[in-house]
Amino acid sequence: MKTLSGIPASRGICIGPVFQFLRQELIVAECKVDDSQKEIKRLEEAIQIAKDQISSIYEKALTEASKADAEIFQAHLMILEDPELLSEVKKKIETEHCSADFAMKETAQTFSNMMAAMADEYFAARATDIMDVGNRVLRILLGVAESPTASLKAPSIIVADDLTPSDTVLLDKSLVVGFCTARGSATSHTAILARGLGIPAVSGAGDEVLAQTTGSTMILDGTKGQVILSPTENAIQDYEKRIETAKTMRDASMKHAHEAALTLDGRQVEVVANIGNVEGAHSSVQNGAEGVGLLRTEFLYLERSTLPTEEEQYQAYRAILDVFGQMPVVLRTLDVGGDKEIPYMGLEAESNSFLGQRALRLCLVRPDIFKPQLRAALRAGVDRNLKIMFPMVATASEVRDARKVLEECRAELRAEGKPCAENIEIGIMVEIPSAAVVADQLAKEVDFFSIGTNDLCQYTMAADRTNPKVASLSNAFYPAVLRLIKMIIDAAHAEDKWVGMCGELAGEPLATPILLGLGLDEFSMSPPMVPTVKQILRSLNAEEMKALADKVLQLETPQEIQEFVKEQVPFIAELVS
Amino acid sequence: MKTLSGIPASRGICIGPVFQFLRQELIVAECKVDDSQKEIKRLEEAIQIAKDQISSIYEKALTEASKADAEIFQAHLMILEDPELLSEVKKKIETEHCSADFAMKETAQTFSNMMAAMADEYFAARATDIMDVGNRVLRILLGVAESPTASLKAPSIIVADDLTPSDTVLLDKSLVVGFCTARGSATSHTAILARGLGIPAVSGAGDEVLAQTTGSTMILDGTKGQVILSPTENAIQDYEKRIETAKTMRDASMKHAHEAALTLDGRQVEVVANIGNVEGAHSSVQNGAEGVGLLRTEFLYLERSTLPTEEEQYQAYRAILDVFGQMPVVLRTLDVGGDKEIPYMGLEAESNSFLGQRALRLCLVRPDIFKPQLRAALRAGVDRNLKIMFPMVATASEVRDARKVLEECRAELRAEGKPCAENIEIGIMVEIPSAAVVADQLAKEVDFFSIGTNDLCQYTMAADRTNPKVASLSNAFYPAVLRLIKMIIDAAHAEDKWVGMCGELAGEPLATPILLGLGLDEFSMSPPMVPTVKQILRSLNAEEMKALADKVLQLETPQEIQEFVKEQVPFIAELVS
Repeated sequence: MKTLSGIPASRGICIGPVFQFLRQELIVAECKVDDSQKEIKRLEEAIQIAKDQISSIYEKALTEASKADAEIFQAHLMILEDPELLSEVKKKIETEHCSADFAMKETAQTFSNMMAAMADEYFAARATDIMDVGNRVLRILLGVAESPTASLKAPSIIVADDLTPSDTVLLDKSLVVGFCTARGSATSHTAILARGLGIPAVSGAGDEVLAQTTGSTMILDGTKGQVILSPTENAIQDYEKRIETAKTMRDASMKHAHEAALTLDGRQVEVVANIGNVEGAHSSVQNGAEGVGLLRTEFLYLERSTLPTEEEQYQAYRAILDVFGQMPVVLRTLDVGGDKEIPYMGLEAESNSFLGQRALRLCLVRPDIFKPQLRAALRAGVDRNLKIMFPMVATASEVRDARKVLEECRAELRAEGKPCAENIEIGIMVEIPSAAVVADQLAKEVDFFSIGTNDLCQYTMAADRTNPKVASLSNAFYPAVLRLIKMIIDAAHAEDKWVGMCGELAGEPLATPILLGLGLDEFSMSPPMVPTVKQILRSLNAEEMKALADKVLQLETPQEIQEFVKEQVPFIAELVS
Repeated sequence: MKTLSGIPASRGICIGPVFQFLRQELIVAECKVDDSQKEIKRLEEAIQIAKDQISSIYEKALTEASKADAEIFQAHLMILEDPELLSEVKKKIETEHCSADFAMKETAQTFSNMMAAMADEYFAARATDIMDVGNRVLRILLGVAESPTASLKAPSIIVADDLTPSDTVLLDKSLVVGFCTARGSATSHTAILARGLGIPAVSGAGDEVLAQTTGSTMILDGTKGQVILSPTENAIQDYEKRIETAKTMRDASMKHAHEAALTLDGRQVEVVANIGNVEGAHSSVQNGAEGVGLLRTEFLYLERSTLPTEEEQYQAYRAILDVFGQMPVVLRTLDVGGDKEIPYMGLEAESNSFLGQRALRLCLVRPDIFKPQLRAALRAGVDRNLKIMFPMVATASEVRDARKVLEECRAELRAEGKPCAENIEIGIMVEIPSAAVVADQLAKEVDFFSIGTNDLCQYTMAADRTNPKVASLSNAFYPAVLRLIKMIIDAAHAEDKWVGMCGELAGEPLATPILLGLGLDEFSMSPPMVPTVKQILRSLNAEEMKALADKVLQLETPQEIQEFVKEQVPFIAELVS
């Protein structure tokens, strides 16, 4: 038995036989050809076939995956329409008198290497797309059938170096119990796909997983980011019990999902969801969320070639608000830059994009992006319980500037005679250390705070949360992060403002007692976690948790803090074991 | 009159005529040649001549610039020895039957574009180097004389898009009163050169400066990063007065440079220097620094092809310690990663390197780098007043891990019978928000803190200090940063530990009263600032500054804070006007 550590890419535990996803190596020899024009014709035909194939995969993806996943194939079509790539292949055929196969392979490799060499994660990910498309054209040129990897017959854990969108679309998902990749990050395609499907996944587990034979047993813990090779019978029984316990607990908490989260001493806490589209909205309601603590709006901007119009945004926001009726929905304005890049916005690359001009900073200098969103939100909020929240605030003057733009939008809408939401609450994400430290000043400018623990932790610990080398520092249980959370909550309460949290810590069972003790008013998390956190809150005494939180802030490491919580609140220890 | 804002690249003000540094455009037509071998021979000859030229420029640079500047030309030689670049040029000549000139120009352009496209600042800077070398070879092939830009006859402000190392080495520095570049950053070659020469410089001032005719008058404020075009007579008189005042004040403070910094109410503050080599050591002593608050050790690792040996490091540290006799010298262990890259260390590129595995984080996983440095420091510290300081600490366990490695080194040296410094003070840089927030825990693990305001500000405000788009947030006068400084100092004093500061804020006249009021024990800055800060400290009452600091922490913006200090301490207002 051997345990490997990777990156937690999608929550959950599974046990299953390994299925090694072996990609065919396409071998192309360099050979001189006399008739370059004939080769160019072959190339053009192969590209047309490739385009047809991609279009039909796109249709298939649309029906079974989310729209965003399907849009990847639109990107593939665009690669095949990129004049630079194709003119390079043709030029190579003409000047070097080589075959279309060789020219295609070499050029795709060169372009892909260039992309992969870029420090920026977005471009690095595009390298895989280019190879994916290049190999498709090559297979057609070589007459090799599309990846016959689907000899997958029994439910299995798919193991691969990393998976491309084409790889996964053709997989029969009902036979996949988990994903384990040697490379990749928490933001790679496999990770996103797995989370969408609710299948456990571990990324970046290292090359050793590739040496496991198909059929051998593996335990995969997507919550901890661990993979156990050749598990002992004991380990298997242990994990089977955990899977069973988790299922039982989940079933139990689901029974009470729609009841309020009232603590033993009668404090009512709001439990809401983080969502990014209408499907998430429905899932929230099913899981008993009492509204939305974070509506991400990036989904409207990604995988497109132009900005969404005000009308498109209005329709999208309204559709989501309609699902919630009079329940509160906190809409976060566009949070791009950093790890998310949107080509048509014309953003320049930044060396340390997490410390750059992103989110509100970008919106304040780009009214062409900011104002249509605010106008759409104000229109969509009519007769609904909409709240607007600005991300990435560091200073009070940024809040005032943002509010000024919002008031401009409101005045414009009124002048145009369009209905527009009045008296809506305005809040900010508190996710930059500065905002935590001057929370007393910021509390005077807003109606509420929502603590973004992912970024707050990243900046407080100076550890990029997508960088596996500093992963151990990227832990919101560090006392520095928890102390800042206390400062934020105390400062807001001193001004009678409420505080929510929409970072991952809000959905962490071991954090629930601490956050309750610190006085958090609203917990926002991915919809499937709502029933569990509600159940935990109902089993705790809010007054007692104050002392627990005070003690926790004096400890030194996340491990000490988590052990202490387990010791003090044994039923949670059982829940997360 | 028009004022443009750029990046402050080198302190100081100057007024002078513009000298437009016009680079010749080398025009090369594409033409087919029959005898490819002849072209390759021409190419090889031109490259040999280029190498000879570069070698002699290197010698010239060695005598007049710092060694690091000269080493850039070693890098140029390496580009000409890069087999990939040259084989591409030769291949192009052979397959496309083009001239050596055309092949060289196109290939250099392609390689340079590839480099420039990389998000990483290090590679982007290499793009200029490749074009610089490529153009040298081209000029030789075309028979064009080396840049005759030196029609520079009178003291002038050199204006250019950006300057390459070759451009600047051939300039007569005695005729340069300032540098103004349209592009470039605070870390570009021009900026580094200007700071080394003590000449004011502004980078990234925008294309408008390129439209100024040679001979027209310009005011350049390298401290504020401003350029004034077509200044009025009044403005010129105003700035002339400022230059004069600065000189007078500097002369006055130099008279007392070697006296202690005793406040009006008798508190003695230590004023020490930030240095990076022996020249800095001598400059410190001349300027009255009472030791070294930050000895940067990166100089030993840059512009080399292998790690410096323990012996090399020992010699270098000892030479510096010898300059200071029994004065304290705080040696900071290697702080690389982030913006500094060192090819031979085999560090992988990181997307957000400022939030990655840098400084102590790297040293703790690379004992091959860390231990020779610690051993060298322990040996060099014998009979000297050496203190060792670890950079980029976020948690108490990192400090314990680092101390463990230090104790291992000490034990090894003892076992080898080598003399080794005993009882030296161990400290840490406090430059990550986490370290500030848990300073009470860290204070128990160390003998002293040194606050690194540049990084602390960068992480607290989540604003990359090398990114001009977020420059306004990158200001250590923000109350969030000042409040963290207070937390750090209070926590250290509660444990009877002393606190220094080696970030830029320590050398800011307007910050002196605030930092004195917050209780800072040691101010460390670039040597030329020492006399001024000592003079200011001698004119202040430490007890009175406590109230000033308390008030400052309640203000909201750097502007408000600076205005308040000017109002409260008018003589500083005069000093910085």
